[in-house]
Amino acid sequence: MSSHVAYSGARTLVVETADAVPPPPGQVRIAVAYTGICGTDLHIFHGDMDGRVRPPGVLGHEMSGRIAEIGSGVEGWQVGDPVTVMPLRWCGECPACRAGHTSICHRLVFLGIDAPGSMQTSWTVPADTLVRLPADLPLDHAALVEPTAVAVHDVRRAELRPGERALVVGGGPIGLLIAVFARRSGAEVLLAEPDRYRRSIGEGLGLTALDPRDDGFTATVDEWTDGAGAAVAFEVSGAAAGVSTAVAALATRGRLVQVAIHPAPREVDLHRFFWRELTLLGARLYDREDFTAAVDLLTEGVIPAATLISRVEPFGRATEAFVALESGANVVKVLIDCQSGGAGEAR
Amino acid sequence: MSSHVAYSGARTLVVETADAVPPPPGQVRIAVAYTGICGTDLHIFHGDMDGRVRPPGVLGHEMSGRIAEIGSGVEGWQVGDPVTVMPLRWCGECPACRAGHTSICHRLVFLGIDAPGSMQTSWTVPADTLVRLPADLPLDHAALVEPTAVAVHDVRRAELRPGERALVVGGGPIGLLIAVFARRSGAEVLLAEPDRYRRSIGEGLGLTALDPRDDGFTATVDEWTDGAGAAVAFEVSGAAAGVSTAVAALATRGRLVQVAIHPAPREVDLHRFFWRELTLLGARLYDREDFTAAVDLLTEGVIPAATLISRVEPFGRATEAFVALESGANVVKVLIDCQSGGAGEAR
Ligand SMILES: [Zn+2]
Ligand SMILES: [Zn+2]
Repeated sequence: MSSHVAYSGARTLVVETADAVPPPPGQVRIAVAYTGICGTDLHIFHGDMDGRVRPPGVLGHEMSGRIAEIGSGVEGWQVGDPVTVMPLRWCGECPACRAGHTSICHRLVFLGIDAPGSMQTSWTVPADTLVRLPADLPLDHAALVEPTAVAVHDVRRAELRPGERALVVGGGPIGLLIAVFARRSGAEVLLAEPDRYRRSIGEGLGLTALDPRDDGFTATVDEWTDGAGAAVAFEVSGAAAGVSTAVAALATRGRLVQVAIHPAPREVDLHRFFWRELTLLGARLYDREDFTAAVDLLTEGVIPAATLISRVEPFGRATEAFVALESGANVVKVLIDCQSGGAGEAR
Repeated sequence: MSSHVAYSGARTLVVETADAVPPPPGQVRIAVAYTGICGTDLHIFHGDMDGRVRPPGVLGHEMSGRIAEIGSGVEGWQVGDPVTVMPLRWCGECPACRAGHTSICHRLVFLGIDAPGSMQTSWTVPADTLVRLPADLPLDHAALVEPTAVAVHDVRRAELRPGERALVVGGGPIGLLIAVFARRSGAEVLLAEPDRYRRSIGEGLGLTALDPRDDGFTATVDEWTDGAGAAVAFEVSGAAAGVSTAVAALATRGRLVQVAIHPAPREVDLHRFFWRELTLLGARLYDREDFTAAVDLLTEGVIPAATLISRVEPFGRATEAFVALESGANVVKVLIDCQSGGAGEAR
């Protein structure tokens, strides 16, 4: 038997069970260890993405697990191998794919949104989505590979150079991961985050964290950058004010990486883009090299997984886990223990 | 005696005369042949830039002329040499200058806005602003070097590659120059311009010009790009609608070069920047290599100067020239003949 958490309409998560089905040719069945909940999952939970997620839909795309069963024609994998999944399926034929940008395929299928995700005891996926995990990477930590790959992609998109000053606007999980990886890449990093708890997490990671609403914020950025402004800013807040903070902080020829999802158009100071010759770079997902880099960063302990994982909840408390995350109170990353309510396959 | 056209407050241009003063050390006095009027000059004429242009101010920064007198310590130039001027003075010390971006110096002085410009019979400028003109480039054509340098810079900023499809949004002088130079650089170019007359000028230059308000516009862009969208868009309109047109037309990983001045913040679809991983690049002025490239393009006849110069007016009709340009009716570029009201130095 396999269990899963199904989204059945706004604010409704139901644990369902089904027979575990053998994987078809070219696919593998994974015994999922952990699945993280991200901001997009919360949007779905709120009912904001019902046009894309048809109930009952299984959520989850930040995960870790072990191979439990292997379909015919799959080479190179063994039962028990620890894995994560790059949850993208692209068409290979659209203009984006033909230009090599498969992660922004016009017909991209994102597992966990457009197709069943990993909030299951057993998840069956195409073998070419698998990403190998080292034996010594704890599987709870490995559930952070996917968001870490986002951060790696964002920093790569900025073409960040050692010694540059980078402002990270927004101290949620992705913002913190970007800050940590940007620092690892040699940048001097400042975190701008209105929430006191999130700032305290950033400070616990050795980051300087400021409230962008404080009167002295602009002067501090000015002093920190010797009057030049930041070379790079990451907009990870999704708020209109975050865009303004980022644009105002940038140096001449500064680069703004747009990471967060803005549901509505935002007023942007295009005159400043003109005047200072700024660059805005949209950043969405990741490529395989970002994923493998993320595995390495977690394995080497660069990413402070233990600090970022605030709690782990069993299947039966999935709703409570989503509610805890949406409140934002004293929580960064919440994982679902995907063997807790299922057939009990060992991990 | 030297004459000049002085801006004396909103909508008021006055012809004044003064003694021609010998150039100080390191400077040269130019007998100005022609000065073009640009959109920024119109803004000043409207009184919109009174905070920056103190009446009586001499406008003009698109010009050509011949050296009339040479100050001490100036090497390499002779009286009679045909020249134009790169009208920028930078500080050399600010963060932008130290990073090599002198044209976006934090304390940039733009001759013709922040300091007296070329709408004079005699203009005295530092020798290091001079740009040499070939003997066979007509001086009226040479008055287009400065706006052509803007276009060269904009296309360089896009890193336009041969075969790419480029949408130019806005068919004023700069838009037309960008379109012509982008085509010369090997791109396939489409011009989007609501005004029928401007479209007709574009068509006269062999460009395909469409009204972006037409129902079929989006479908045409789609067909033109095989469903991919344009690799590059240049926003040269300064209008809110122009930004939307450009963003909507771009392919995945497309680049939008922000050329026009937007006096107010604009609503920008940041979700599309995220979703398609678009890039926005602010572009402001030019470097010396853009200027010398522009001289070559005009000398080789790549830039259709005769088509773009709609009329040439004498000093005494400067106000009429500004009014004709602001009406936009059947006019692209208007030049002032700077010897018409002056001491009559030969050109
Ligand atoms: Zn595709
Ligand atoms: Zn400077």
